[in-house]
Amino acid sequence: MRRYTWKTISSRIAHANPYYRVREDAVIRPSGMDGTYYVIETGPSVMVVPIASTGEIYLILQQRYPTKRFSWEVPAGAHDGGSDLENAMRELREETGLISDEWSKIGEVQVMSGIADHKSMVFIAKNVRETSDHMQEEEGITHMRKETLRRVFDMIRSGELNHSETITAVTLAALHLKYI
Amino acid sequence: MRRYTWKTISSRIAHANPYYRVREDAVIRPSGMDGTYYVIETGPSVMVVPIASTGEIYLILQQRYPTKRFSWEVPAGAHDGGSDLENAMRELREETGLISDEWSKIGEVQVMSGIADHKSMVFIAKNVRETSDHMQEEEGITHMRKETLRRVFDMIRSGELNHSETITAVTLAALHLKYI
Repeated sequence: MRRYTWKTISSRIAHANPYYRVREDAVIRPSGMDGTYYVIETGPSVMVVPIASTGEIYLILQQRYPTKRFSWEVPAGAHDGGSDLENAMRELREETGLISDEWSKIGEVQVMSGIADHKSMVFIAKNVRETSDHMQEEEGITHMRKETLRRVFDMIRSGELNHSETITAVTLAALHLKYI
Repeated sequence: MRRYTWKTISSRIAHANPYYRVREDAVIRPSGMDGTYYVIETGPSVMVVPIASTGEIYLILQQRYPTKRFSWEVPAGAHDGGSDLENAMRELREETGLISDEWSKIGEVQVMSGIADHKSMVFIAKNVRETSDHMQEEEGITHMRKETLRRVFDMIRSGELNHSETITAVTLAALHLKYI
């Protein structure tokens, strides 16, 4: 019933840069037709939903180069080796200065799986505490705010927050917290 | 306060294929450091959350080549020209055979905006009706099911549904329907 029917005939790297590469595969599609598939190969990433003792969620304002826009997001970044949790702790601290002793992994999601193999591990960090130990300036982060889950969902509904992976992470957090 | 401070010095296409291209930009980062940014340029896409008259959501099982996995998703596809709504109607029909007279656009999200400019328009189609007019076989779609929003959120929590853009679309639909 669920037999995987894509076939790979041959494979070559069509583009490589320090962040990802594009693999060009000759394939046979599930329909039996042959074709070419261009797969973006990236390493995994981590996302962190930081929760204050009040239950509020921290968001950071990123200026994103590919979209030329500012975007409210949860802290996230590429996996640099080490454990998933170590990566999550590092990204949270670098991007916000926040630290926590209460971590849980709440999901593992596929992003843009029509063209990419990108996997992201989602963490929640509870009872976070603010420190001044961060690198926001280097990272291009200009603002941080904390909001209730209700308010974050209102930002999503209105389009003020429209970063797909952040919407995914907030939804997983809301499920974990039994808000949904 | 929100001054956009990335600067582009020069730009060239490093890779192109029929589906997207990779633009290599020499940039000055917000920190003032120079660097190179590789932006994946894609056209926009549409996603559709199809809702039965019972309130249940239709999901399709896709076999995804980049991840080599099966994935429960809402119907989606690349924008082929024409209006956003025309694209949404076509994708829904091709992937499910479903039709509807009650369409609303419920969001516009950025996907993988750390490396891509990809934008996706999210629609809801209410009171959908089943027809046999679809191309599931050509598209590699082997199963379709409908589930309550509660059950879909349970699938997300358990990881049975882990397609990030589908989680985003379902969350936008749940907000539109005032379920959240």
